[in-house]
Amino acid sequence: MQDSNDPLARYRDLFHLPDGVIYLDGNSLGAMVKTAPERIDHAVRQQWASDLITSWNKAGWWQLPVTLGAKIAPLIGAATDSVVVTDSTSINIYKALHAALALRPDRSVIVAEQTSFPTDLYMTEGAMADRPKLQRRLIGEAGQGVDAALDENVAVVLLSHVDYRSGALLDMAAITQKVHAAGAIMIWDLCHSAGVIPIELDAANVDFAVGCTYKYLNGGPGAPAFIYANQRHHNHIKQPLSGWWAHAEPFAFKPDFKATGGIRAFLCGTQPILSMTALDAALDAFEGIDMQAVRNKSKALTSLFVDLVLESCGKYGVELFSPKDAAQRGSQVSFTHPNGYAIMQALIARGVIGDFRQPNIIRFGFSPLYLSFEDVRNAAKTLFDILASGEWDRPEYSQGGAVT
Amino acid sequence: MQDSNDPLARYRDLFHLPDGVIYLDGNSLGAMVKTAPERIDHAVRQQWASDLITSWNKAGWWQLPVTLGAKIAPLIGAATDSVVVTDSTSINIYKALHAALALRPDRSVIVAEQTSFPTDLYMTEGAMADRPKLQRRLIGEAGQGVDAALDENVAVVLLSHVDYRSGALLDMAAITQKVHAAGAIMIWDLCHSAGVIPIELDAANVDFAVGCTYKYLNGGPGAPAFIYANQRHHNHIKQPLSGWWAHAEPFAFKPDFKATGGIRAFLCGTQPILSMTALDAALDAFEGIDMQAVRNKSKALTSLFVDLVLESCGKYGVELFSPKDAAQRGSQVSFTHPNGYAIMQALIARGVIGDFRQPNIIRFGFSPLYLSFEDVRNAAKTLFDILASGEWDRPEYSQGGAVT
Repeated sequence: MQDSNDPLARYRDLFHLPDGVIYLDGNSLGAMVKTAPERIDHAVRQQWASDLITSWNKAGWWQLPVTLGAKIAPLIGAATDSVVVTDSTSINIYKALHAALALRPDRSVIVAEQTSFPTDLYMTEGAMADRPKLQRRLIGEAGQGVDAALDENVAVVLLSHVDYRSGALLDMAAITQKVHAAGAIMIWDLCHSAGVIPIELDAANVDFAVGCTYKYLNGGPGAPAFIYANQRHHNHIKQPLSGWWAHAEPFAFKPDFKATGGIRAFLCGTQPILSMTALDAALDAFEGIDMQAVRNKSKALTSLFVDLVLESCGKYGVELFSPKDAAQRGSQVSFTHPNGYAIMQALIARGVIGDFRQPNIIRFGFSPLYLSFEDVRNAAKTLFDILASGEWDRPEYSQGGAVT
Repeated sequence: MQDSNDPLARYRDLFHLPDGVIYLDGNSLGAMVKTAPERIDHAVRQQWASDLITSWNKAGWWQLPVTLGAKIAPLIGAATDSVVVTDSTSINIYKALHAALALRPDRSVIVAEQTSFPTDLYMTEGAMADRPKLQRRLIGEAGQGVDAALDENVAVVLLSHVDYRSGALLDMAAITQKVHAAGAIMIWDLCHSAGVIPIELDAANVDFAVGCTYKYLNGGPGAPAFIYANQRHHNHIKQPLSGWWAHAEPFAFKPDFKATGGIRAFLCGTQPILSMTALDAALDAFEGIDMQAVRNKSKALTSLFVDLVLESCGKYGVELFSPKDAAQRGSQVSFTHPNGYAIMQALIARGVIGDFRQPNIIRFGFSPLYLSFEDVRNAAKTLFDILASGEWDRPEYSQGGAVT
């Protein structure tokens, strides 16, 4: 595929991209849609400053977790009323773990990945803190060993759909089926797949899923996360962060908690409206989008980058850390190099922005909505220039300075 | 006190107040400081759109929970490094309850108020969900019966500093002392006192406190909440929402959770930066403020309103629900009336904005930073007009319509 026959080329103009920058870090913080500043300014000056508390109803603030969830739902193959936007990914993992454990009270094992994004593991520790009978069974990278880990003691399996370091993409449907065959509950972490991969949560019969909105969904810094529950669980969601937003009658101010039915049972307290407004604008860019077209472009972008970099930079010690087969890879490419940190600093200094992950990984995210094939070629060329010239070997690029 | 000798009169100009409105609902959603739109726009267009991920360091995003906490600290009598802004009040109550219970592992009772804002109670239910040995002991309104509730089984006492319905103000120092004498941990909910009452958490030796930032602190809709821990607990904070922001080495991406020391142990996941930016602007209005002057004006405003309303409206069935003595009252006045709902709707239609709480309470909050004594007189006069004319008795003001 080339830019001239890219069916998504028109999306690029929806985004603000700084001059002189090739932004390959949309898997950390997505770029801003051009409509965001005005939308936020309206929420600030009109809805907050002028309309004040009436905006909880008039501007739909109270419903934002549900209305934003409904905009995310089609991107992840979920029924409209099966997703809410609320709190952070970490907190939603905690809720999903508790909801899963409540569905399997006679089982005692949580299966998770040793190399998942660490907060997933930390939240399993938190969920286990008050339940001495629970145990954790850690499996290898990208779901390796999940089969062997499954037995009649497993209550819940928590896996990342796309690995945050390598970009490895798991087979959601097949793994979910195995987990169910073992009688366990399946939770998917979609942080690195939502917005770039066609996901079919309902079709795969997934139980719960959580994900981030500020990466490929472009919701802005720290925008609240989303959480999904399969409709068959909607009247059985039990989670301990039982705040008033999850109450069946939140404005009756009753002293006893009575969970509402449906996905709102995953809500807790008052949500950050201004940050949600940015997300609202960002999600509008996805309206009616063909996620298969997004995936096709994503695979083409990452494959081009892999090919160009291996061809030109392999001799300088750059090795592919991501799966070679695009079908097994998310929208991200990672390489290793002993001087990865300095190389990434040199790239950033040249306006090619990716990031570095310990111990030696340089990581590049490809957002198909705002990246072109020319960007990819230029980024690969810049990486080659830096390696060929030895430009990365400068004191200011050495590790030990500020974290990027 | 009158407007002509109000030492805080100059603060009013810092806020945007809609024309024709007397805003007596700052205890629900505080008014906007005039600097907020530009500050937020800068965060959106410059920090997010142009500087992208570099803003996590360059713009101080990563530190915002701590820097905002340090701005709140002097308003609540806390050491600078004893407060963070993060997550919601409900979630922070959950954390504080767990941290308290971890300090009293051999005790089994949580004491809370039957009529506190319900989410406080709901979160005690959540905290108890996985611990069958825990019990809850409910006491009466505004801390009544706390003495009788204290015994050697009590692990933690959770009380509201100011009651959300009546505005009753509790004696923080005296109650904390009693709770400590019984060997229990004290948590204060400061949602309705932070920003309007001089609070001395450290001096009162309080263990933990939580509070809202979008009421009297004017942080904007759903701005994240704050949580305080006394310095003596800083190296013993155990709470199950153990996300990566609370890790001792968050960027080492280690698989095992190791809590950081200090107040950051109450953090969890990524925070909504745009909403925090609004709060940042709002807190700057409090820089160097004399909280005793705020309290003096608050007492004078609420006392004037009580006197005017009782004098002119008592004959129409309006009764004072708040404490009569200003010293025992927060910055809020509540009355009861059988037709409270309709009366509040009529007031709002006339531009006097308060709110209604079941079953028959009309509630008025007084933010001393942006309200004048003239506002108070005009509001009381409008209430009188509505009652004297019977204007409230219109179909459009009857209950059953949309919730305000």
